Amino acid sequence: MSLIPKGFSFGVTSAGFYPTVRNELGILVSDRPAVAAATFTQNLFPAAPVLVGKAILQEQNTIRAVLINAGQANACTGEQGIADCKAMLKQLAQEINLKPNEILPASTGVIGGISLDIWSKAIPKAVKNLGQADAEDFARAIMTTDAFPKMAAKTISFADKEVRVLGIAKGAGMICPNMATMLSVLLCDAAIDTASWTALIQRAVEKTFNRVSVDGDTSTNDTVYALANGAADVLVTKIEDMALLEDAVTAVLSDLAYMLVQDGEGSTKVIRINVCGAASEADAAQVARTVGHSQLVKTAMYGCDANWGRIVAAIGRAGVILDPAMVSVTLCGVPLFVLGQPVTTDFDALLEKPLKERDLTVDISLSTENTNTASYTLLTSDLGHAYIDCNASYRS
Amino acid sequence: MSLIPKGFSFGVTSAGFYPTVRNELGILVSDRPAVAAATFTQNLFPAAPVLVGKAILQEQNTIRAVLINAGQANACTGEQGIADCKAMLKQLAQEINLKPNEILPASTGVIGGISLDIWSKAIPKAVKNLGQADAEDFARAIMTTDAFPKMAAKTISFADKEVRVLGIAKGAGMICPNMATMLSVLLCDAAIDTASWTALIQRAVEKTFNRVSVDGDTSTNDTVYALANGAADVLVTKIEDMALLEDAVTAVLSDLAYMLVQDGEGSTKVIRINVCGAASEADAAQVARTVGHSQLVKTAMYGCDANWGRIVAAIGRAGVILDPAMVSVTLCGVPLFVLGQPVTTDFDALLEKPLKERDLTVDISLSTENTNTASYTLLTSDLGHAYIDCNASYRS
Repeated sequence: MSLIPKGFSFGVTSAGFYPTVRNELGILVSDRPAVAAATFTQNLFPAAPVLVGKAILQEQNTIRAVLINAGQANACTGEQGIADCKAMLKQLAQEINLKPNEILPASTGVIGGISLDIWSKAIPKAVKNLGQADAEDFARAIMTTDAFPKMAAKTISFADKEVRVLGIAKGAGMICPNMATMLSVLLCDAAIDTASWTALIQRAVEKTFNRVSVDGDTSTNDTVYALANGAADVLVTKIEDMALLEDAVTAVLSDLAYMLVQDGEGSTKVIRINVCGAASEADAAQVARTVGHSQLVKTAMYGCDANWGRIVAAIGRAGVILDPAMVSVTLCGVPLFVLGQPVTTDFDALLEKPLKERDLTVDISLSTENTNTASYTLLTSDLGHAYIDCNASYRS
Repeated sequence: MSLIPKGFSFGVTSAGFYPTVRNELGILVSDRPAVAAATFTQNLFPAAPVLVGKAILQEQNTIRAVLINAGQANACTGEQGIADCKAMLKQLAQEINLKPNEILPASTGVIGGISLDIWSKAIPKAVKNLGQADAEDFARAIMTTDAFPKMAAKTISFADKEVRVLGIAKGAGMICPNMATMLSVLLCDAAIDTASWTALIQRAVEKTFNRVSVDGDTSTNDTVYALANGAADVLVTKIEDMALLEDAVTAVLSDLAYMLVQDGEGSTKVIRINVCGAASEADAAQVARTVGHSQLVKTAMYGCDANWGRIVAAIGRAGVILDPAMVSVTLCGVPLFVLGQPVTTDFDALLEKPLKERDLTVDISLSTENTNTASYTLLTSDLGHAYIDCNASYRS
């Protein structure tokens, strides 16, 4: 039984955006109109494909294809970048008999312009490959510095029928060089109305991709396209079915989000920061992000050092109102700072082994008051030498 | 002619806080009561010496001495830390015939408690050394991972008399491991009233120390103590004299602030980020800090890579309302992004040499509208391998 949602086919090709020969251009086509939802970067310099994709989805709810590439971000390119992006969609549309506004574009790579001539030559090759590539080929075609292709899938049964959810992603918006980076495509073969699908995807992205971070740098190109084409012949309308589908989508995106952090450049750890006892979710998120973005916390985790003072100091500068005497910090299950006081146990001995694991957990309780019940979890990576190596000379 | 303000003497000693023998405890005494102003960390977990120093200055305006150390931060230590800090002040007060609340404490080092027995043995040794150490010995006694002692001085003439301003500082609040870190003492031998001195120091600190950053981690121990003891026999009251003194103080603190960034752990660059054309100074500061804290910008500068897309993307995620089409970015005098559009010059060739210098400048203009006149300058360092080396294993 295939995990790939029905009705989708893939094509990839090498285009020549990178100095070495590899596939870096991908096309995905649905054999029927798919309900489309999307989330885009919040960066004020959205890339040309983000602007074009947004405009297409404002005009219509269903689309037929996605054109995606690694190696050229087409970001910060002004009017020319938008014209170039539209020209490529037009060329592809002609070749596969669609209208340009039935195709969504997405790009990742170094910020700057694209080479139209390379594109024009590559598109027919990708079209020729349509149906021959599989989902993993497509996942590989959008990798930049990713160490492995990122895919996650789930199948849900509705009576006698099955619905498949497949997620594909590449390098986290924050981990990747040039921030031109977080792209994901989610495919589903259920039928669902646009409003429900859009709301469902927004909630799932908020709980998954929006809660990972590596270096806090929000990309100009971040894009999630979610397509539901109905090829499984299952119409999802009942509340309980919607909930099942949302759980599956969230689980798939959550797996992908974990992989983004796991494959962070130079990353040796996946650090799960749980903040509870906050007055609001915004407060909890603010504390989790301040700790998770602290270079001092990240280098300590890289060095397997239980340097709890760095965590407490980051909490203290997060800009959230709190009572220091109510704050507790636990690392990998070992309490280090309890109700504003340091512990006297030999925590270094207790933590020697757990800190060498790949997965670390930081539990932060801001208050034990009954009124403070908000919480937030952030996944982040550590900061080590390989990050410097990768980012000091990425462009050259 | 000595640059050291009159009436101040210094004593240092090795205490044993570090595994290697070095001076890490310093005393400074004014031969007469000095008007004291101070600025402290904004961190919600202020260290014990910060709390004790604040309390002393709430009770009285003049002090006689400062007790300072590196190697133990006495931060996040609860009630015990405060009791220990007070016990040390009491011991020193008895030995030099002062009251405990005439002495200001400051500590830097690993977050956690202090060893009272080591302190008790060290204080008499430092007292014995009083008057034998010079200001540089004192500056060296508060170094942690600093590569060099940080001092700056200025002399101002008032009619036939001279006033001396001397600043001493150690590792920047944000660059140093454990964030336990930014300490500075400013000495002046002018006479000045408390209110004017406090306001002057606050303005000068805001323009200097508060505009440097290395990793954005605000210390639990940040402290600036500024003492004006009047030993030069010059009473500063006239507005123009105040302005002269403020210029001198600001120049001294500005020199120290530069040194903090220059000596940042792993730092190979001092990056001056000038933001202009902002709607408010807060907006300009927010953009400067977002760019200056971006790991991707900092690693690019470390790698001498003119990766302007990272700067533009950081501006775009700063959370400041702006019109992308009005934004320009210039690196070391070479325009890279003008009014929302990339330039077509061969900027890599133009920037090859300038980017290898120690001092880099990033000029960011957010708008050319006449209404947007606010600006802000931040000094920051790059991010390289030595930072990781230093911080991955600092505590062990």
